[in-house]
Amino acid sequence: MNFRQVIYQPSSPGSTSAADFVLREAPARAPAEGEVLLQPLFLSTDPYLVRLLRGQGAYGKVPPGKPMRGRVVARVIASRHAELQEGVAVLAEADWAERVVAPAAGLIRLEELPGVPLSAYLGVLGSSGITAWGGLIDIARPEAGETVLVSAAAGAVGSVVGQLAKARGCRAVGIAGGADKVRHLVQDLGFDAAVDYKEGDFGARLAQALPQGADVYFENVGGQVFDTVLPHLNRYARIPLCGLASLYERPDDPVTLRNFACLLDRSVRLQAFRVTDYLPRRTEILDELTALVRSGRLRYHETLLDGLEQAPGALAALMQGRHLGKQLIRIS
Amino acid sequence: MNFRQVIYQPSSPGSTSAADFVLREAPARAPAEGEVLLQPLFLSTDPYLVRLLRGQGAYGKVPPGKPMRGRVVARVIASRHAELQEGVAVLAEADWAERVVAPAAGLIRLEELPGVPLSAYLGVLGSSGITAWGGLIDIARPEAGETVLVSAAAGAVGSVVGQLAKARGCRAVGIAGGADKVRHLVQDLGFDAAVDYKEGDFGARLAQALPQGADVYFENVGGQVFDTVLPHLNRYARIPLCGLASLYERPDDPVTLRNFACLLDRSVRLQAFRVTDYLPRRTEILDELTALVRSGRLRYHETLLDGLEQAPGALAALMQGRHLGKQLIRIS
Repeated sequence: MNFRQVIYQPSSPGSTSAADFVLREAPARAPAEGEVLLQPLFLSTDPYLVRLLRGQGAYGKVPPGKPMRGRVVARVIASRHAELQEGVAVLAEADWAERVVAPAAGLIRLEELPGVPLSAYLGVLGSSGITAWGGLIDIARPEAGETVLVSAAAGAVGSVVGQLAKARGCRAVGIAGGADKVRHLVQDLGFDAAVDYKEGDFGARLAQALPQGADVYFENVGGQVFDTVLPHLNRYARIPLCGLASLYERPDDPVTLRNFACLLDRSVRLQAFRVTDYLPRRTEILDELTALVRSGRLRYHETLLDGLEQAPGALAALMQGRHLGKQLIRIS
Repeated sequence: MNFRQVIYQPSSPGSTSAADFVLREAPARAPAEGEVLLQPLFLSTDPYLVRLLRGQGAYGKVPPGKPMRGRVVARVIASRHAELQEGVAVLAEADWAERVVAPAAGLIRLEELPGVPLSAYLGVLGSSGITAWGGLIDIARPEAGETVLVSAAAGAVGSVVGQLAKARGCRAVGIAGGADKVRHLVQDLGFDAAVDYKEGDFGARLAQALPQGADVYFENVGGQVFDTVLPHLNRYARIPLCGLASLYERPDDPVTLRNFACLLDRSVRLQAFRVTDYLPRRTEILDELTALVRSGRLRYHETLLDGLEQAPGALAALMQGRHLGKQLIRIS
């Protein structure tokens, strides 16, 4: 029996529109000793995938003609490994496909908890949540009463950052694009304020939302938003640098900053990090996040699309900021 | 009897050429209870003074028509304070003048040690040395075998950074402007390599001097030099951000960076700081630096000019990078 997989077939080098991917059918091979056969359930679309396709950054490269890959939640449907039996749910870095054979050693077994859908392990309890926790709690170390500002606040990482900040007694302010997202942040997720960077006079409205300035700026975006935020930072502000989404589409464009000296004047600490830095602490981090999810203090929004064929278009939509929360593909 | 002082009288707002200062004569008043009369011996010229004149940054502002001020080493010549007797040497933040009356409470008493001239307390054992120590030892925390890169390496701070790095078992590489400075760094101060940023193909020569990349980049300059350095940083590189001299002359010019994403890719930590952050640890820091100076492992170069009237021109020369090591004015 044949199964579909997504192949990266760009029309020009580094192009990442929906048309740069094709579906191909192939039979699934049987797992060898130590391997399992997986049925992917959910597939995660994330900004880092664009950099993966272009071989930028730290995640390797998907060469043209090869299967696209990413993070998936899957179920083991055949096993040749003693500990990962049939029926178990796992987290994997795997090809975008309807069946995947993988070495059991690289998989993370997932706990199926009441009230926690498996898809959450790709978002709030997955790399998004761990990224938010690492940058906010470990790097920025906010104290109660401080103000935490986050860009791409309606995204999968940003929405966790703001709610974690609230849970720690901070004021949470989000930056997002569009009135719907701004409303969602304040009304659904409990942010204290949110600012639409696409509206005019962004700097002045940011100042209004930050009457005491910002002690933490969790950065997902870079570029003009970064530059506009700098003058609103307080002395000893911390900037966990998680992503630079504004650069992914046009990585060769220079970044022009008018307020760079604010980093010096405010004695700012900017620290870039990767989710992989925090995987050794995954259990501890998920304990905290799971408790918040189950108590209703950490809400998350998933945009679910059905069918593997939706994945390429979803990635393009993600990069255009058309999503709210975590954007997932339900494969089966 | 009248004494001279330097008044800031700019031809246009924020101008800082030698012609923007005038000398004025005034009598010295007698110290009141708790005050001392100081005879300044040495006056320090530092890049932060330009920002002080313009009210940029964190050090206040010298308004037009008022005396210029800065760091001086002085001797107490009359005292109305029990602990600071006549003859004692002190470090002060004071007007640029031949006599100064100051509250004793704001002064730091200096130890007069054999082999350590008092002028050193304005440089290698003063704010320059403390700045170098704080950024390198406390913020960057280099380990033996790592590579430490420093800009403005022939300056008062940079020259200490490189030698401290060597004393900790690191490879020290300096960036400076001009063949004389580059030679000085390697031949006189023991840097492993030095690169002239004014020569063509700066990036390629930097790569040659950094066969293992840079684990620490001690930044004094900013702008184009910063941008050129970014691709040579290793994963988890640290950037103590001490100054942005390239911006002081044209603070409103935007900074264009082509390699900003390197901060993310390399998981860089950039941390700005001020010398004042480390004043509480002054004794501990000076113990280490003084021992290095007295053992000959920490060399320093002073450019001494005689007479208060030299100070304004010296400040302009400093900003044009025409100095080597610490530039001081000997007043008496």
